[in-house]
Amino acid sequence: MSDAAPTGGDAPQTLGGLGEAGILDDIFASLTTTDAVLVGPGDDTALLATSGRVLATTDTMVRGRDWLDEWSSAHDVGMKVVVQNLADLAAMGGVGTGLLVTLVAPGSLPAQWARELTAGVAEVSAATGVPVIGGDLSSSDGAVMVSVTALGELPGGGDPVLRSGASAGQDVAVSGSLGRSAAGLEILRRGDVGWWPPTEHAATAAEWVAYHCRPDPDLTQGPVAASAGATAMLDVSDGLVRDGTRIATASGLRIDLDEEVLARLAGAYEPVLGGRMALDCVLSGGEEHSLLATFPVGAAPAGWTVVGRTSATGPAGPGVWWRGERATGGGWDHFGG
Amino acid sequence: MSDAAPTGGDAPQTLGGLGEAGILDDIFASLTTTDAVLVGPGDDTALLATSGRVLATTDTMVRGRDWLDEWSSAHDVGMKVVVQNLADLAAMGGVGTGLLVTLVAPGSLPAQWARELTAGVAEVSAATGVPVIGGDLSSSDGAVMVSVTALGELPGGGDPVLRSGASAGQDVAVSGSLGRSAAGLEILRRGDVGWWPPTEHAATAAEWVAYHCRPDPDLTQGPVAASAGATAMLDVSDGLVRDGTRIATASGLRIDLDEEVLARLAGAYEPVLGGRMALDCVLSGGEEHSLLATFPVGAAPAGWTVVGRTSATGPAGPGVWWRGERATGGGWDHFGG
Repeated sequence: MSDAAPTGGDAPQTLGGLGEAGILDDIFASLTTTDAVLVGPGDDTALLATSGRVLATTDTMVRGRDWLDEWSSAHDVGMKVVVQNLADLAAMGGVGTGLLVTLVAPGSLPAQWARELTAGVAEVSAATGVPVIGGDLSSSDGAVMVSVTALGELPGGGDPVLRSGASAGQDVAVSGSLGRSAAGLEILRRGDVGWWPPTEHAATAAEWVAYHCRPDPDLTQGPVAASAGATAMLDVSDGLVRDGTRIATASGLRIDLDEEVLARLAGAYEPVLGGRMALDCVLSGGEEHSLLATFPVGAAPAGWTVVGRTSATGPAGPGVWWRGERATGGGWDHFGG
Repeated sequence: MSDAAPTGGDAPQTLGGLGEAGILDDIFASLTTTDAVLVGPGDDTALLATSGRVLATTDTMVRGRDWLDEWSSAHDVGMKVVVQNLADLAAMGGVGTGLLVTLVAPGSLPAQWARELTAGVAEVSAATGVPVIGGDLSSSDGAVMVSVTALGELPGGGDPVLRSGASAGQDVAVSGSLGRSAAGLEILRRGDVGWWPPTEHAATAAEWVAYHCRPDPDLTQGPVAASAGATAMLDVSDGLVRDGTRIATASGLRIDLDEEVLARLAGAYEPVLGGRMALDCVLSGGEEHSLLATFPVGAAPAGWTVVGRTSATGPAGPGVWWRGERATGGGWDHFGG
């Protein structure tokens, strides 16, 4: 209640001025729904029809840690946090059926920021047909945080594609780009110290930045991969090496990355970022949300890129190998480590 | 990564020192599971068996706003945030089937705090048989926040009890206490200025404080009320008047509160807190999480207390009436209002 800010004159409207009910009215207006939503926002809980099983995942973004206001608009944040969650569903072979959206913010936050956040959420919701079925608003002393829970299902009643199902002698393939989000982040970082890409690369670099702020991986590839016989899958959120290591560890395997293919992918970033950073983006760049999966040899769907091969674990144990050596580190750990 | 704190010597272990993987191992160790959990924590998403519909709700607690470290332990917070969510499921007539738990905290947070939080979550999880099926860890620059999403189902395939189903001429009843959490909070506030209850009331007041920090409403009354024919229901999270107004508004009714009954309930607090504060606790005290429901006259289950009666809306529109006048305000709005 101490957050209630004066809103007289031409002062911009704040969350505190709008009040909780006003904010909720704003947020839930204009959101799409589906026949599966038996009870939507506004009661104690939502009620969603399911096919007998429900996928559930949650992912959070924190201002100053997961985004900077200088680089990302509220609309960007709304889109990105939903995409991150839907990518986790896709990585099981699933599709979204409902979203719960939580905003924690101080009363002094401009109401316009919350509206733009909602517009970003609504844009992905409409594009993917996954409705917002509920959420929560809480006040903070300054921190701004957006947390989403995504519910989903497995089309056709199939089995989920776990991280642990890969076998030796299988292809390791990626559904889309690698390193694009990290390249965009690097452009933003260099921009902060006054460096901008050469004119002939400006448009390309701007696309990387856009992908960093609003990633739009083709998440329909999750169910496609499951149908094609993917044996293990996740989405690239912490970098190819780190996420590849998760599959290797869960499946008890060694993964050898294909140097030639990855060097070719890095070639796209090299003229702008230099060779070393370009390769770093491809091997360690996070927040890409392309899908990384293992398949019987030759079974990866059209459009996927084979980036490695699994084999039985030797004395060195499971892990990812690059140029004949175990690849470690890279990627992002929220708490060091 | 900048959160990685030095942990040499006898310095207490921090989240930063433990690292994300270590924290997750800690948190998911020793948690219970059920047959319905087809995929638990550790993959991209959880997969939960359902009866064809799933209830979903989410609620968040923020340090400094929803709890103070001086008054609430991490164990308290873990218990309370889960109970709040399960109360929302109960208020639909449902029971929990799975929890997703998100912790946002700075790397400098003592790892012991996170472990105690987990112990609190685990205690309610074990007591209610609702497993933790997933979650998220994110770093902040200082804010500490715990967000829970609870999934559930309606026993016996019944219909959810909405807020909008009450009719004129029905009983308004509450499943348990009113004002106990608020009375406990008031004791804590007065303690801060050096006031403590008289010795003969010390034990009772301590129980109120315990209920404020670790509410344990009988949530089995949700399905019991649904079976008994509850026409509308919610849990008392923002106070009797405010939550009653929600039912009145959603159902298009007037609710007249029973002065005699509520004065009797307030009598429990009066010797310690005085008459005015005692009545405030009963009418406006939040975080009680008792269930408030409407029933055909006489149909409220054993143990419930009838606290009012519904009637058709007059010219003044829907709302809650107390002593012949419309009751407004009271209760808690996260953003003023």
